[in-house]
Amino acid sequence: MRVSENFPGRTGATAGLRLRGLLADPQPSYLMGAHDGLSARIAAEAGFTGVWASGLCMSTVLGARDSDEISWAELLDLVARIVEGGGLPVLVDADTGYGNFNTARRFAARAERIGAAGMCLEDKVFPKMNSYFGDSHPLAPVGDMCAKLAACRDQVDAEFVLVARTEALIAGAGLAEALRRAEAYRQAGADAIFIHSRRRTVDEIAEFTAEWGARLPLVIAPTTYHTVPRATFAELGIAAVIWANQSMRAAVAAMRQVCRSLLADGAAAVEPGIASLRELFDLMGYPELEADEAHYTALAQKWSDAKPVRVQSHSMSDEDVKHVS
Amino acid sequence: MRVSENFPGRTGATAGLRLRGLLADPQPSYLMGAHDGLSARIAAEAGFTGVWASGLCMSTVLGARDSDEISWAELLDLVARIVEGGGLPVLVDADTGYGNFNTARRFAARAERIGAAGMCLEDKVFPKMNSYFGDSHPLAPVGDMCAKLAACRDQVDAEFVLVARTEALIAGAGLAEALRRAEAYRQAGADAIFIHSRRRTVDEIAEFTAEWGARLPLVIAPTTYHTVPRATFAELGIAAVIWANQSMRAAVAAMRQVCRSLLADGAAAVEPGIASLRELFDLMGYPELEADEAHYTALAQKWSDAKPVRVQSHSMSDEDVKHVS
Amino acid sequence: MRVSENFPGRTGATAGLRLRGLLADPQPSYLMGAHDGLSARIAAEAGFTGVWASGLCMSTVLGARDSDEISWAELLDLVARIVEGGGLPVLVDADTGYGNFNTARRFAARAERIGAAGMCLEDKVFPKMNSYFGDSHPLAPVGDMCAKLAACRDQVDAEFVLVARTEALIAGAGLAEALRRAEAYRQAGADAIFIHSRRRTVDEIAEFTAEWGARLPLVIAPTTYHTVPRATFAELGIAAVIWANQSMRAAVAAMRQVCRSLLADGAAAVEPGIASLRELFDLMGYPELEADEAHYTALAQKWSDAKPVRVQSHSMSDEDVKHVS
Amino acid sequence: MRVSENFPGRTGATAGLRLRGLLADPQPSYLMGAHDGLSARIAAEAGFTGVWASGLCMSTVLGARDSDEISWAELLDLVARIVEGGGLPVLVDADTGYGNFNTARRFAARAERIGAAGMCLEDKVFPKMNSYFGDSHPLAPVGDMCAKLAACRDQVDAEFVLVARTEALIAGAGLAEALRRAEAYRQAGADAIFIHSRRRTVDEIAEFTAEWGARLPLVIAPTTYHTVPRATFAELGIAAVIWANQSMRAAVAAMRQVCRSLLADGAAAVEPGIASLRELFDLMGYPELEADEAHYTALAQKWSDAKPVRVQSHSMSDEDVKHVS
Repeated sequence: MRVSENFPGRTGATAGLRLRGLLADPQPSYLMGAHDGLSARIAAEAGFTGVWASGLCMSTVLGARDSDEISWAELLDLVARIVEGGGLPVLVDADTGYGNFNTARRFAARAERIGAAGMCLEDKVFPKMNSYFGDSHPLAPVGDMCAKLAACRDQVDAEFVLVARTEALIAGAGLAEALRRAEAYRQAGADAIFIHSRRRTVDEIAEFTAEWGARLPLVIAPTTYHTVPRATFAELGIAAVIWANQSMRAAVAAMRQVCRSLLADGAAAVEPGIASLRELFDLMGYPELEADEAHYTALAQKWSDAKPVRVQSHSMSDEDVKHVS
Repeated sequence: MRVSENFPGRTGATAGLRLRGLLADPQPSYLMGAHDGLSARIAAEAGFTGVWASGLCMSTVLGARDSDEISWAELLDLVARIVEGGGLPVLVDADTGYGNFNTARRFAARAERIGAAGMCLEDKVFPKMNSYFGDSHPLAPVGDMCAKLAACRDQVDAEFVLVARTEALIAGAGLAEALRRAEAYRQAGADAIFIHSRRRTVDEIAEFTAEWGARLPLVIAPTTYHTVPRATFAELGIAAVIWANQSMRAAVAAMRQVCRSLLADGAAAVEPGIASLRELFDLMGYPELEADEAHYTALAQKWSDAKPVRVQSHSMSDEDVKHVS
Repeated sequence: MRVSENFPGRTGATAGLRLRGLLADPQPSYLMGAHDGLSARIAAEAGFTGVWASGLCMSTVLGARDSDEISWAELLDLVARIVEGGGLPVLVDADTGYGNFNTARRFAARAERIGAAGMCLEDKVFPKMNSYFGDSHPLAPVGDMCAKLAACRDQVDAEFVLVARTEALIAGAGLAEALRRAEAYRQAGADAIFIHSRRRTVDEIAEFTAEWGARLPLVIAPTTYHTVPRATFAELGIAAVIWANQSMRAAVAAMRQVCRSLLADGAAAVEPGIASLRELFDLMGYPELEADEAHYTALAQKWSDAKPVRVQSHSMSDEDVKHVS
Repeated sequence: MRVSENFPGRTGATAGLRLRGLLADPQPSYLMGAHDGLSARIAAEAGFTGVWASGLCMSTVLGARDSDEISWAELLDLVARIVEGGGLPVLVDADTGYGNFNTARRFAARAERIGAAGMCLEDKVFPKMNSYFGDSHPLAPVGDMCAKLAACRDQVDAEFVLVARTEALIAGAGLAEALRRAEAYRQAGADAIFIHSRRRTVDEIAEFTAEWGARLPLVIAPTTYHTVPRATFAELGIAAVIWANQSMRAAVAAMRQVCRSLLADGAAAVEPGIASLRELFDLMGYPELEADEAHYTALAQKWSDAKPVRVQSHSMSDEDVKHVS
């Protein structure tokens, strides 16, 4: 019954090695944003080979805002569901590491323990605000970020992937600062650089890649520059592209629509556009559970075929009772 | 910043009283199935006045099957998010109560503690299988179910709503057994009866209501008989109709579609059909957080206007150090 | 079966009101430090009327250091056990509020939700170090602390107690700064001031109380100045004295001793000095559970006395199956 | 900073292999009962080489009774603290597996995931009552127990240890039934048999071992027959002896004493008999944290020595804002 054993991305390799394989692929790999066990399972079913456990999306489904409103322990509980749900290597959004070098490495240790493939630290100040909202995105001192990366590197096994995300472009600090930070993070132990941009175009990413070269694999999240063709990412030498929140945003739109429709028109109107129960049961492996139940019930029967034994509870002897007292 | 204070259903009354109000309304009330903080928030935003915390849906988003695969503590953690997410009264699917009278009342105590309006116990055997899957749905002894109801009733405050769900029709035990059980549950302390059916038509529900009369409010979940017009529920005197899983099934269909489309066509193709980030930020109250930050930052400034104080750490005196040793 | 109903401190009043009563008592009240459900139960059994949910002790039993190594959500899970375990009003150690005004008020909302009587915020920098260890205890800007207090005050019900703890004396900032901060916290909404000292004598506390007067109730934790007689606390007008960690430290010594003794001499040697199983069962209410089981089993029997009904599972009709597909 | 790296039992081998090593040792191994991170750490410090995560003790510290009052997820959260707290191989008390073959294997999967060395299933009926309390201890059908064992065996890696505990002697079913069950469990995949007795003498254990021979390693918990000398266990060929709850019972006695003493005499009276803060800090590794902080702060300084960069937040361009809308 191994979890998710029937999914394409599932192999015997550790999660970390599988993610390293994706980053090493000469073609861009695509990581699908997930926020719970179900969305991870759907990503695996569709054919994705890696998952991004998005801080924004996990916060949203828990009913909170992406401003460190959710404790890191609760997020990692959800990450555990994502890991188990899809059987894919999971890169965990670790925000700023929730404090200092020590909280960051504790996060790393637990992320590794629950089977994540790697984690991504960003260089903003705790508590941070989502990069797409508002104009207040102060950067952490580069030394603090490096200390966190080094402490995480010392904490986890070599296979576990550490991604360093710089928000220098989001913060308006400019290309030179982005490059300076990325280089410092590389030296501090990062395995890949996540260069983040919220422009509508890929221009500032392209400027970065031109200077950066192949020092470390690059990761991007083209949420705002989604019109850029995928061929461009290949040309720029991007290692991994994250579709960070499309799945959650699709769910939002669909749930809003179905709620309105139920109130306005009742259930019959919504049924054609939603997954049937049968589809759901197949997706979640109910037939497998039924088969397992038959299998183990048959085993139980076999072992029960020995002669029945009459069992009766009995009292402790007086001596025993006295003892326990 | 009171959670969800701006939602229509939010009043000062306790959750239990609000749910009792919905059940007492001469017209059927509609409870929207929810499975996390986000779906609860969307239900509230759309105008629903109550929520059903669905065991099937919560299990699904956690990546598991609706066969008591998730511990009751984890489900209640998610229920807490549902309660906070939408600000609506929440009726919690408690399955069979996770053991006996004692586990059931412990579930009840915690459900009440986290702000749920009520809970629903069903008369199957633990671990149960989802009522829509397969043909193995053995019923628990009526006495066991009554003991659970009585123990829960003794445990919680009078306002907390106890719904007893009979699976007699699902189990094929027939109308007479369904009525016998419902009556026993009424006597044991239930506030309402959830009469469950998985037929395509409302016929067996109608037979039940004809015999039951107005002994207690009736709750139904027309998942399979969704083509029945809502006027019929009013004619039958139904107190509450649960749209148990449409929101989750809508999310499944939408996420599957967006994953396939991202793989096939890239991000630009999916953007028009999904919620924008701005919509998401508005739904989740990001502007309110921004306003609160401005407000409290101004307060902080006011209190800081006293003269700055130089703070330096100092060592414990020798005597103190000796003491701590 | 109401939790802890048989404990002396348990009344119908809300936890917050009960804690306010303790603070208003002209004689010093004593809050016993607790770290789990068991230690809270023992405190209640002994006759204490209030509990301090100690960050140091909770971190320790979770295997971590008192430097914000444990997430706030995990600490509050443990606080819930403390609340339920003893039935006493619980003042929660909230450290620095885990970030900013927003994380602090989220902590407050959840502390209130799980039944805590109040919480205590301290004016150090996150992540903080335990006040008794080392010499690095930088203070947070007074405005930041005030913003947290004000945001918590706006968040919770009026009965919930907000204690502001100043570490000014620990940090070596001096009496004037301690008083300035305490006054600012009072204006920002604190209900009481926790004036912390790690001296061996009560002198700096006495200097503070002389200047402070009766502006707000004062709370202390005489961990290092434990030789000070209790009469002195009354003379100084202290409202509440916290025995913060003695229970945990007693457990440490006892468990170390029993481990060594078991290894050296085996089990017989340790038995006389430890609680018997019978004592444990009585403390934890096993006889009450046994009585409840008899009670509800009898009820179940009564409701089962109706004629037995044969229950058989049945298949969905073909039409139904088609529908579910 | 690897967790607990400085403890004697900690090696590179997986937890399961280390526990297998203890069971294979010709001399009896001793597993110390633990109930949280602290008690596990103390066991490791004292020199124990393995830990029993006791259901009774974990329930107790959470404030509950050993009758499946705590959900399996909460127990495993605590087990994770025990695993991390001491760095020793942990055998987890899994009670009856919390339902059926499916819940049992889910428990196993998570126990393995969080680093436990193995788990122990017992053949009573869910919800069970602690074996030392009362006289109602009905046995589960042997086939059901075998199905659970087989399903767990199929679920986990080969190194993970499965212990089958028979309560046949506790239930009064007699020696023959105990042997029949142990043999069935062996065939179903158990790695060891836990033969449980609550007599004051070792007699019924000795009868069992005489018949059982060396078919599988045997595990015992001499809680009631604690006066039996350890040499006897060696003579009987016992593989592992569990000191199941002495540590917790020592803590109970000590905390009761300190509470009473604090109320009667104040803090000075208790100080000599409890661990000092300094001892506590050393036990929990505070000096190591201080050293780590110095180390990573120095690293941070090194990376900061590049020229300072002025960072300013900036607004999204009008075009970008329009897009995000």
